[in-house]
Amino acid sequence: MEIKQYIQENEARFLDELASLIRIPSISALPQHKEDMLACAERWRQLLLEAGADEAMVMPSEGNPLVYAEKRIDPNAPTILVYAHYDVMPAEPLELWNSQPFEPEIRDGRIWARGADDDKGQSMIQVKAFEYMVREGLLRHNVKFIFEGEEEIGSPSLNAFLKEHRELLRADVILVSDTSMLGADLPSLTTGLRGLAYWEIEVTGPNRDLHSGHFGGAVANPINVLCGLLAKVTDADGRITIPHFYDDVEPVPEAERRMIASIPFDEEAYKAAIGVKALKGEKGYSTLERNSCRPSFDVCGIWGGYTGEGSKTVLPSKAYAKVSCRLVPHQNHETISRLFTGYIQSIAPEYVQVKVTPMHGGEGYVCPITHPAYVAAEQGFAKAFGKQPLAVRRGGSIPIISDFEQILGIKTILMGFGLESDAIHSPNENFRLDIFRKGIEAVTEFYKALDL
Amino acid sequence: MEIKQYIQENEARFLDELASLIRIPSISALPQHKEDMLACAERWRQLLLEAGADEAMVMPSEGNPLVYAEKRIDPNAPTILVYAHYDVMPAEPLELWNSQPFEPEIRDGRIWARGADDDKGQSMIQVKAFEYMVREGLLRHNVKFIFEGEEEIGSPSLNAFLKEHRELLRADVILVSDTSMLGADLPSLTTGLRGLAYWEIEVTGPNRDLHSGHFGGAVANPINVLCGLLAKVTDADGRITIPHFYDDVEPVPEAERRMIASIPFDEEAYKAAIGVKALKGEKGYSTLERNSCRPSFDVCGIWGGYTGEGSKTVLPSKAYAKVSCRLVPHQNHETISRLFTGYIQSIAPEYVQVKVTPMHGGEGYVCPITHPAYVAAEQGFAKAFGKQPLAVRRGGSIPIISDFEQILGIKTILMGFGLESDAIHSPNENFRLDIFRKGIEAVTEFYKALDL
Repeated sequence: MEIKQYIQENEARFLDELASLIRIPSISALPQHKEDMLACAERWRQLLLEAGADEAMVMPSEGNPLVYAEKRIDPNAPTILVYAHYDVMPAEPLELWNSQPFEPEIRDGRIWARGADDDKGQSMIQVKAFEYMVREGLLRHNVKFIFEGEEEIGSPSLNAFLKEHRELLRADVILVSDTSMLGADLPSLTTGLRGLAYWEIEVTGPNRDLHSGHFGGAVANPINVLCGLLAKVTDADGRITIPHFYDDVEPVPEAERRMIASIPFDEEAYKAAIGVKALKGEKGYSTLERNSCRPSFDVCGIWGGYTGEGSKTVLPSKAYAKVSCRLVPHQNHETISRLFTGYIQSIAPEYVQVKVTPMHGGEGYVCPITHPAYVAAEQGFAKAFGKQPLAVRRGGSIPIISDFEQILGIKTILMGFGLESDAIHSPNENFRLDIFRKGIEAVTEFYKALDL
Repeated sequence: MEIKQYIQENEARFLDELASLIRIPSISALPQHKEDMLACAERWRQLLLEAGADEAMVMPSEGNPLVYAEKRIDPNAPTILVYAHYDVMPAEPLELWNSQPFEPEIRDGRIWARGADDDKGQSMIQVKAFEYMVREGLLRHNVKFIFEGEEEIGSPSLNAFLKEHRELLRADVILVSDTSMLGADLPSLTTGLRGLAYWEIEVTGPNRDLHSGHFGGAVANPINVLCGLLAKVTDADGRITIPHFYDDVEPVPEAERRMIASIPFDEEAYKAAIGVKALKGEKGYSTLERNSCRPSFDVCGIWGGYTGEGSKTVLPSKAYAKVSCRLVPHQNHETISRLFTGYIQSIAPEYVQVKVTPMHGGEGYVCPITHPAYVAAEQGFAKAFGKQPLAVRRGGSIPIISDFEQILGIKTILMGFGLESDAIHSPNENFRLDIFRKGIEAVTEFYKALDL
């Protein structure tokens, strides 16, 4: 049976299976969802067996368990390792969702839910392409699956797991569907990723909340101080001011800058889509360079003092922020973490106490476009989308991709099918069903074309 | 009966009455406490009648009701108007309280609860001194009471009430016990108060939370922008940078600076009490000047992005802050509010939308130390505390004190009995029982000495 027909005949079941995963709120950031993590892993185990794996199991780690499955074709055949993650981001702010985040709805040709794209929907593409290859007897490679439950919190247990199970995970190439394309009609494959470093900052002023009338003006306010510290991390040109921060950043090659400049990009449409009047970024770089090839600094969250209704006056004791840097290849996240911590401590004034806690981090990644699996992926995308995909660097981070390379010695092909409009990590996350179908077709064609 | 004996014989009842008020969580900032406001007003009405008022009533306003009571002695005698407030601040953060905020506990010679000092405890001093004067037949003045329920949210309904009831509230002097003294052994009377202006700032970046990997570096982050805006409001010398902010600020007179310098003040003990290694404030001024005679700028609250557990990466859509300026006499809070709003808008970059909402405000106040009621208060304090009280300006704001002057044309005597250790507006608010007793004695002696 042709893949298009197979998808048509089975799509209702595929979506039911996806819905059964989405309904399990596997939010790794929140400890109250521990049991949901187990339930979601178990559900994937069943689905991988049903899709054609010879065996599948839920394996313990130091944190949430991982799901491992494999299909053996021939000990001498090349082996593909499919990595995905079954955990999702928190759904807050809940009031901005148009439907329940953990009760999927299909409308306007999309499935709406937390995880619809990232990464339950995208993982399902991999599993269904595999199912087709198995059921049609077309599979020429051994396939292994490893689905983890801590990607959204920085995969704290994965490295130890990889080291412990090097043999089990031995493969020739890794496939990951967890990135996005330039557009629905602009297929692309990701050849580079940014790294990440993430910290929590706690500023303590007085040992208790003070009356801002009795003390204001004479005692440093930790929120004012925190704002001042965070404002100092970038300068007027949008550059990060941490000493030595750019030491390992390689200039973007001129050839790559030309390629990026050739990507169709409508800045007005981009601004309109996110509702801003103007863009802001590092001087001397284009928007597409800024969000993929250059590092960035974002305050992801901030809180302190009175945040309820009305107008309480207070000089608070504490202020907090969660901050992150996106890094580019060759920037070591541990080095950056030390530089950041040292810089903040060096500019912290004596009238407050500042604590910087590194939360997680990961390296950037680059995949050569001459890799045979990359070439096969290009062909798969070209068949499914009717267009040769562009090779682009993306601004997101999948820190474990560089860990795979370091620990397992394997390159990863990032065949992601997300779109900007999928709103991952945001309210109203969704995934287009036409892309879901083309994704399954693209992965299927990849399997057919792959010649390692 | 002597006042000391009267207090001794009746103290258990006084504290029971105070506890009955404290148990009503009359938090004006939170709309769910509307019924508690009514209950607390009603309780005061009963207590004022029991203390000796001829009549007492709960009177409606545009917001929470006010309690009015009066004792008529002689139409030709001078009239004293006692102002107080029965509302309290929210008790958050609850986890920092050592006992329940709305279930008073007496330990270590203090009563511990939200409102123990501010202003239920201090109001009780006024009511019990009045009770003594009535019961002993010593009262030579007419006395009126007006207790409001919106002081902690800026008294939004009081001005209209004062204008409507000018005749009812006619008096020769106003007494208010809602300020604090320099120390338990350092009695003082407040002759100046700072004004206040309070705003909420909302910064909107993109129209939804964005993935900080896909957009970070190319799109302005509203938290980063908010921090930058707030950091710009003060300069390295601790001065407020808003143009024309200091135009109406009069230099502190040299004589007053000398008086302030003569106040016993142990900066090391002050720092130790609030747990900071260093103080921070406007260059060229002492700590006591900074927190009483000079304006200040504090961020009272800030929030935005992900503030839960773990480390969610996000480029949020919105960031918020609640900010306030303490003002000094002659700074008009409405002028300052316009200057602040204009300044923030003028420095707001085009890549975000910034909304500044004025929340409330009030003018500063000065009372001449030659006022006959001030002189009587001085005598009352001297008898109760055994020391001549110092005349000092305080940094807090009671915006309605200047409204009394403007609308009713009456000066106010600020006979406050609070101490810094009372932790008003903070967890573990408390009031010393020895001060409570001395306060009743001081007000009693004031009545005896008053010759208007």
